[in-house]
Amino acid sequence: MNNFNFYSPTYFVFGKERENETGKYVSRFGGKKVLIHYGSGSVVRSGLLDRVKKSLQEASIEFCELGGVVPNPRSGLVYKGVEICKCEKVDFILAVGGGSVIDSAKAIALGAVYDGDFWDFYNGKRVEKALPVATILTLTAAGSEGSTGSVITHENGMLKRAANSDLLRPVFSILNPELTCSLPAYQTACGATDMMAHVMERYFTNTKNVEITDRLCEGILLTVINETPKVLADPNNYDARANLMWAGMVAHNDICGVGREQDWSSHNLEHELSGLYDVAHGAGLAVMFPAWMKYVMNNDVNRFAQFAVRVWGCEMDFQNPENTARKGIEKYEQFMTSIGMPIRFSQLGAKAEDIPALIKTLALGSNTMGSFVKLTEDDCRKIYELAV
Amino acid sequence: MNNFNFYSPTYFVFGKERENETGKYVSRFGGKKVLIHYGSGSVVRSGLLDRVKKSLQEASIEFCELGGVVPNPRSGLVYKGVEICKCEKVDFILAVGGGSVIDSAKAIALGAVYDGDFWDFYNGKRVEKALPVATILTLTAAGSEGSTGSVITHENGMLKRAANSDLLRPVFSILNPELTCSLPAYQTACGATDMMAHVMERYFTNTKNVEITDRLCEGILLTVINETPKVLADPNNYDARANLMWAGMVAHNDICGVGREQDWSSHNLEHELSGLYDVAHGAGLAVMFPAWMKYVMNNDVNRFAQFAVRVWGCEMDFQNPENTARKGIEKYEQFMTSIGMPIRFSQLGAKAEDIPALIKTLALGSNTMGSFVKLTEDDCRKIYELAV
Repeated sequence: MNNFNFYSPTYFVFGKERENETGKYVSRFGGKKVLIHYGSGSVVRSGLLDRVKKSLQEASIEFCELGGVVPNPRSGLVYKGVEICKCEKVDFILAVGGGSVIDSAKAIALGAVYDGDFWDFYNGKRVEKALPVATILTLTAAGSEGSTGSVITHENGMLKRAANSDLLRPVFSILNPELTCSLPAYQTACGATDMMAHVMERYFTNTKNVEITDRLCEGILLTVINETPKVLADPNNYDARANLMWAGMVAHNDICGVGREQDWSSHNLEHELSGLYDVAHGAGLAVMFPAWMKYVMNNDVNRFAQFAVRVWGCEMDFQNPENTARKGIEKYEQFMTSIGMPIRFSQLGAKAEDIPALIKTLALGSNTMGSFVKLTEDDCRKIYELAV
Repeated sequence: MNNFNFYSPTYFVFGKERENETGKYVSRFGGKKVLIHYGSGSVVRSGLLDRVKKSLQEASIEFCELGGVVPNPRSGLVYKGVEICKCEKVDFILAVGGGSVIDSAKAIALGAVYDGDFWDFYNGKRVEKALPVATILTLTAAGSEGSTGSVITHENGMLKRAANSDLLRPVFSILNPELTCSLPAYQTACGATDMMAHVMERYFTNTKNVEITDRLCEGILLTVINETPKVLADPNNYDARANLMWAGMVAHNDICGVGREQDWSSHNLEHELSGLYDVAHGAGLAVMFPAWMKYVMNNDVNRFAQFAVRVWGCEMDFQNPENTARKGIEKYEQFMTSIGMPIRFSQLGAKAEDIPALIKTLALGSNTMGSFVKLTEDDCRKIYELAV
């Protein structure tokens, strides 16, 4: 096991109607002037935004608001948010929404206390300060409610890049599974796919003897596999929604990923897809992950066999572990199909002839990407081709 | 799933030689005058205490020290620690040791900023303030390095009682698996037993549909079952020690226990045993847990069958799930025996004729204990009898 630091100080407030305690928690974490940040009108129409405002008012907390975050959130709105924070002397950002809203809020939190361009942090500048961010989660997927990360697409060139810092962990996150019951099946399935990807990008590692994190990863995957069909069959299944919601947090706050090399190549390969076609991130992952798996499988057949046996219940073929490994990937593809996800370019609306463009924005040049297998530009091209 | 709050703000510093960074982290968390608290001379003899002091000196942090914590830590030393803190204006407690040392440090942290008797908090008084506690862990077992709890035995009556509060979570914990390599086999096995108990007391619940926490619990148990024999065969197996160390933290910081009713009856039944005979807590648990399981099994045969199949790899007997449930308990007993733990009173040096005394200090009276099955005094007597 590798040396590591792990710090996850987010206060999680989980369960039914907990959004009505927003004001209390903003106060506890020192917020006096809040920017409420959200996406589409659904949080308005559902009455959620009103309940949140009421709770803030009851705690005598001032607020202003900024809606309009879109999936694969953009830099434009971040600049606007930063400006509002500076003008209005906002000291606390409250994200009401899914991963896109939270990521956008984190970007604003960086920009609001920085004299330069917030994008610097997405180009690798070290984070030293940020406004506190809290979240009220409405979509189980990105894990941003407990994670260190934020992914933003810059409208200049449509580059999709990430910033990471312990300072970007939300100070509190309200997780009410009821708020996710109105999600359409497709978005629910995209969320499940994203959660599984977060786990698998930690799972496929060259670090040896990491049984505890292997087992935690497998437990999360088994949960998503068990619970997702339940919520697709009955969107109001509270317990299944709740299991997915906690699984989504645990999948990405890194408790299952510490002490091991991680490999985020599939996420990177996908970012180019959703950057170019503006497809749902989860759907892009469902297409890229099996292609990546097939390409890198022979780097550690036994790890893929373990995945097949422990996660997908395959019988181990002791004479030919490769058969087992391959069956695990097939099972993953079958599961994706069963929950309505695409697994090939054509189902996503992506085109083989765009692969050179995808490779170009990936911009590896003479460098490589990933750690489980270090991928050259040529490897990435072949993986995209496997996804066609 | 039940509503819950979860807050685990401990900063974990994990890996080889990390204790040399102690001074840096004490500084970061605001410590200026530290009480170093420890147990026996082993931390002195091993040179660990010297390395810790050197690190504090390099960070210009003043310190005083108090050794002498014993297993099942006592109130007497806590009173002494509280007095030192008040006289010396200590603002930070650093526990160097295992669960007993950490629990003792937490008790001192409570007493140092309280005008009354620290024992009040072990009689149920709500915690509102405590000095910050940090830990350097030398024994994987109690999970106190990441938990809210502290268990102390009062020398007046040998009562063993617990205090709990988020304020008792350590601000940082240094987990270096190397420090556990010198542990004797018996203590290592006692630690593994304690960790398993922490998980099982969360696992056996009446809360329905809690798949994510079920799976996390099972993953931790599977890890302990896999790794413990490795460290017993080779005490210097770093990776196996590391897996157990992170498993021990995750087993008790409650990430696998949130949103579900928990049942700590076995721990309570054991506390009377180790209170009376001063046996190792883990050894007492190995004796009490199978007895408790056999007594309550019929409350939810399918949950016990799930435990048998998922954790112990038993075949499900679909015609008679009870057979499967019973096999799981047998497997648990066999595992305990295989790692050198007692599973009956006689192996522990406990006597059937003391059961009335155990029941007396348990002091249930007309109340009941536990939630999976609410146990009366009579139930507890029968469980002790099953353990004979």
